Amino acid sequence: MPGDVLLLSNSRPPGGAEPFAHAREVLARHLGDRTAWFLPYAQADHDAYFSWVRDALGVDLRPLHREPDPAATAAAADAVFVGGGNTFRLLHDVRRLGVLEALRANDACRYTGSSAGTNLACPTVRTTNDMPIVDPGGLDALARVPFQVNPHYLDPDPASTHQGETREERIREFHEVDDVQVVGLREGAWLHRSGEHLTLDGNSARLFRQGEEPLELTPGTDVSWLISS
Amino acid sequence: MPGDVLLLSNSRPPGGAEPFAHAREVLARHLGDRTAWFLPYAQADHDAYFSWVRDALGVDLRPLHREPDPAATAAAADAVFVGGGNTFRLLHDVRRLGVLEALRANDACRYTGSSAGTNLACPTVRTTNDMPIVDPGGLDALARVPFQVNPHYLDPDPASTHQGETREERIREFHEVDDVQVVGLREGAWLHRSGEHLTLDGNSARLFRQGEEPLELTPGTDVSWLISS
Repeated sequence: MPGDVLLLSNSRPPGGAEPFAHAREVLARHLGDRTAWFLPYAQADHDAYFSWVRDALGVDLRPLHREPDPAATAAAADAVFVGGGNTFRLLHDVRRLGVLEALRANDACRYTGSSAGTNLACPTVRTTNDMPIVDPGGLDALARVPFQVNPHYLDPDPASTHQGETREERIREFHEVDDVQVVGLREGAWLHRSGEHLTLDGNSARLFRQGEEPLELTPGTDVSWLISS
Repeated sequence: MPGDVLLLSNSRPPGGAEPFAHAREVLARHLGDRTAWFLPYAQADHDAYFSWVRDALGVDLRPLHREPDPAATAAAADAVFVGGGNTFRLLHDVRRLGVLEALRANDACRYTGSSAGTNLACPTVRTTNDMPIVDPGGLDALARVPFQVNPHYLDPDPASTHQGETREERIREFHEVDDVQVVGLREGAWLHRSGEHLTLDGNSARLFRQGEEPLELTPGTDVSWLISS
């Protein structure tokens, strides 16, 4: 049985300054007393990012980037926590360090991701919102879940005169070239896979499927059908 | 002397439905009576996109995607017009078709780009806003200008409680890994290189340089210093 997976849309509650204040209960339940290795690679300043999260969480969190061989540590980890920032930088670094391959081979590892860390748990990072500041050497990711997530999902602003694509239009572009389902995870929301059950909570989400009308999912919904084959 | 370059932030004026209504005069001046080959590859429906732009523009615009050998036509073109849509799909297709290489070798060709087409004229597409819906096989682009453009540049909304990165924060992430200048081109704005002169017009822009405060550029400004070495 693969390790449980917790995918958070974002690290801070909407409008809030305190990291993960909105998700303390589910994080404690998910991580238990396990040692979780933190991957800060989506941010430029690894030490500062690690300290910020560890001080807020009060769980046994350790800095993977401080290990002499991060890939070896990841290969043996009981739990990892992949923080947010720039998804392309994250994927570039975990690939270069061998951590991507190590995590693929360590499917029993309990996975926690927020924002860019949530993108990394998907089959590919092709539904990220981030700017491609570095070439990640391929868009394939960990496939810890069989669907895509769009974190920080934003509803269109009817008052806007901006001519850039809305988030929904961008996801429709994805479905012009692929048929993988995409969960638009609004801020504050998370998906938690525990055993064979997948639950949405924290906030609502919008599910996009190729050629179909989007579907609204309310918090507290059992969405295990997203992971059943 | 390389051909002149016109880079538009967007295809529609802010709030407007009519394509390029805000830029008719500069487009007519830039294209003259040249035949311009249109590249619709950033959109899924090439025919519909081509017709929409041709009907609005009233210039001699022809569909490159209808040519038997698009790369050969691009290699001999006097002028090209690269439309907007998804930058990753555009780069993927022009690379696969050999059009990217053909345009690199045809530096005398007059270049017009809007949105994704503007990204393609930069050294890389690493400052696009688009979702990476396909792997473009590398982020390198045409380098028709020596700086990066961020099209549809959006100022931060001080009322927002959204925790996703602002556009300025995304460009700062780019400058954590590279020192190329980035022009945040607000909607309605364009950059026009005519000979050795580069002018900003249509709207204002915000210039981002590594380690420096951003600089506001007003419409009508001569910014030839951006292309001088």
